[in-house]
Amino acid sequence: MKLASLKGGRDGRLVVVSRDLSSYADAQAIAPTLQAALDDWAAVAPRLEALARDLESGAVPGLPFNEVEAAAPLPRAYQWADGSAYVNHVALVRQARGAQLPDSFWHDPLVYQGGSDSFLGCRDPIPLADESWGCDMEAEIVVVTDDVPQGVSPEDARGLIRLVGLVNDISLRNLIPGELAKGFGFYQSKPASTLSPVFVTPDTLGAQWRDGKLHGTLKVDLNGQPFGRADAGVDMTFDFGMLIAHLAKTRSLAAGTIVGSGTVSNRDADGGPGRPAADGGLGYSCIAEARMVQTILQGEPHTPFLRRGDRVSIWMEDEAGAPVFGVIDQTVTQPETAASGNQR
Amino acid sequence: MKLASLKGGRDGRLVVVSRDLSSYADAQAIAPTLQAALDDWAAVAPRLEALARDLESGAVPGLPFNEVEAAAPLPRAYQWADGSAYVNHVALVRQARGAQLPDSFWHDPLVYQGGSDSFLGCRDPIPLADESWGCDMEAEIVVVTDDVPQGVSPEDARGLIRLVGLVNDISLRNLIPGELAKGFGFYQSKPASTLSPVFVTPDTLGAQWRDGKLHGTLKVDLNGQPFGRADAGVDMTFDFGMLIAHLAKTRSLAAGTIVGSGTVSNRDADGGPGRPAADGGLGYSCIAEARMVQTILQGEPHTPFLRRGDRVSIWMEDEAGAPVFGVIDQTVTQPETAASGNQR
Repeated sequence: MKLASLKGGRDGRLVVVSRDLSSYADAQAIAPTLQAALDDWAAVAPRLEALARDLESGAVPGLPFNEVEAAAPLPRAYQWADGSAYVNHVALVRQARGAQLPDSFWHDPLVYQGGSDSFLGCRDPIPLADESWGCDMEAEIVVVTDDVPQGVSPEDARGLIRLVGLVNDISLRNLIPGELAKGFGFYQSKPASTLSPVFVTPDTLGAQWRDGKLHGTLKVDLNGQPFGRADAGVDMTFDFGMLIAHLAKTRSLAAGTIVGSGTVSNRDADGGPGRPAADGGLGYSCIAEARMVQTILQGEPHTPFLRRGDRVSIWMEDEAGAPVFGVIDQTVTQPETAASGNQR
Repeated sequence: MKLASLKGGRDGRLVVVSRDLSSYADAQAIAPTLQAALDDWAAVAPRLEALARDLESGAVPGLPFNEVEAAAPLPRAYQWADGSAYVNHVALVRQARGAQLPDSFWHDPLVYQGGSDSFLGCRDPIPLADESWGCDMEAEIVVVTDDVPQGVSPEDARGLIRLVGLVNDISLRNLIPGELAKGFGFYQSKPASTLSPVFVTPDTLGAQWRDGKLHGTLKVDLNGQPFGRADAGVDMTFDFGMLIAHLAKTRSLAAGTIVGSGTVSNRDADGGPGRPAADGGLGYSCIAEARMVQTILQGEPHTPFLRRGDRVSIWMEDEAGAPVFGVIDQTVTQPETAASGNQR
C-alpha cells in the first residue's frame, strides 16, 4: 500500500493512496497520523491494507489525490539517521580534494544523525536565506523502521522495514567544511529535508525492492533538464539491513525512525567518475558530485550551487513509467520570515 | 510549575508535580502528553499553571509522587541538540591530548545533533552491552523550546525557553575517537540519554534562572561518593539563548526541541584544571574530565569508566537543600535483550 499525510496540524492527516496516485481515502478512523500507525504497526497495518484494497477496487470511494496538498508523510519524526551507502560518492569527494579513501569506508558504514523535527512537503519551497551558503540537493532513498532492538542482525533488520520513500537531503555545502572541522558533524549545514509525497510498503514495490535495496533509476532534474539518472540498486555498498544494524549496535531505534541511503551515485561504465546525463551518462544526484567530477576532469567546477528560482525534481518510475512515490518538485525561495539568517 | 510524565505508553502521562516533589495531579484532561502541551503552549500552559496552583493550595488532592514511576518528561522528542557551552571542558580535552584549542571555540558554539527517539527515565538502568566501550556519564543542563523561528536573536531565543531540566548524556568514550575520525560526528558513541524526573518552568526557578543560564551546584555522585560539584552558572561561555540562536541560524526549530549545555565544568579557583571533589575541589561532571586532569597532572588516568553495578546520581538543590528537578539515579546493567551488541 501507499500512504501519505495531507497537510493539517503538526503531523498531517493519514490517508491511503491508490497505486496510481490518482485518489486517496481518509485513514484517520484507523490511525490519525502515520506516526500513530507506526506506533502500533502490527495491529494497524492490516486495517490500512484492507482500506487500500477497498480503495483500489472501488468499494470505498476515493477523493482526487493532489500532491500539492501533501505534507511530508512524517512532517516530524523522532529520528532521521542518514548513511553514506554509495561509497562511490564518498570516494569522489575524497578524490576531488586529493585525499585517500580509508579502506575501512568499504566495510564500516558512515552515518550521521540528522535533524528530524521538521520535514518539508514535496512541493514546499526550499527556503534559502543566503545564497552564499551553497545550497545543494541530495537525492536519496529512505526507509522507515518499526521498533528495532539493540544488536539486531542485518537480516532481521530488513524484516523491520515498514515503508520506503525518497528524500531530498538539502545541504548547505559552503557551511560544511567549517562545521566538520569542528569535529562534531553537521548541524547548520543540514536544514530541513524534503520527503516524497508517498511512502510505500516493501511488498507493494514488487521486484523493485530486494536484498534490502530499492532498484530503479532515481531521476533528478535541475531546472527541467535531466541531471541525475543513477540506479539506486547499483553500487550501494551497504544495504538498508546493514545500515540499520550499524545504527542499532549500541542502542535500540524507536518505531518511525527514518534511515537514509546517502546520495545515490553510480560509477561510469568504464569504472571512472560518471559522465553528465546530457552526455549520455548517468549524471549526478547532487550538484557537489557534478562539481567534483568537473574538478577531477577539468580542474575546476562550473555548475553553480542552487540559487533562488532554481527548481529541483526527484522521482522514480515503475515499469510503466509512472512515479512510484510521487514527485518531489521544489523551487528555491527567499524565506518568508523577516529574520534572514545572519544571526549567530 | 513542575511537570513530569508517569510511565505509560510511548509518551507517558502528563502530570503536574508539587514544588516539593511530594505529590502530583493528573494533567491528562488538559494535555495527554508533555509534547501535546508544548505543541499548544500558549493555550495549555495557563491551564497547567492553574492546576499547579490548585495542587499547591490543596484545592486539588494530590497523589504521592514517586520518581521511580516517572518516565523521562519527554520519553521521545523530535530533536535533541547538545552544545559544548562550558569551553573549559573542551579546552581540557585538547590539553590532555596536547592539542591547541582553536580561538574560534570561544566565539562559535560547538553543537551536535543527538538521537531523540528515546530518553531513559531517571531510575532506569544504564544498559551496557560491552564494558570495553568505555561508558561515561555527562551531567548537563537542558532546556526545552517552543517553536523557534529561523534567524532568532539570542535575546528573543531566551524568551522561547519553556522548561529547564537535567540530563545524563551517556557516552561511550572508547567508540568516540573512531567515530569522530570518520568526520560525521557521533552516532554509536551516544546511546539514549537520561532526563531528570521533573522539568521546571523558568519562572519557578526564581533567582536560579537568569541570563539564559541555570545557577547552582550540579551535584554528581559516583557510587555514593561526591564526584562533581561544579556550578552550572559559572564558566558557561554560551548561554542557552546563544546556543538556540546558533541552532536556528539556517532553519527553524520545532516546539519540544531539547537543547543541552554540554558537560558542566568549572575551572579551579587558581584557573587551572579542577581538583577532585574529595580533595575539596569542584570535581567533574564526567569521568573523562577526571581522567584528563589526571593525565595532565599525573601523566596517566586512573579513574576507570563505568562498569556494571556502578551507580551514578545527578541532581541540583534549591536554597533549602531540596532537589529542584528530582534525582537521576542510575545503575549500569547488562541489557535484557539477548542480542548483546556485537553486530556491526
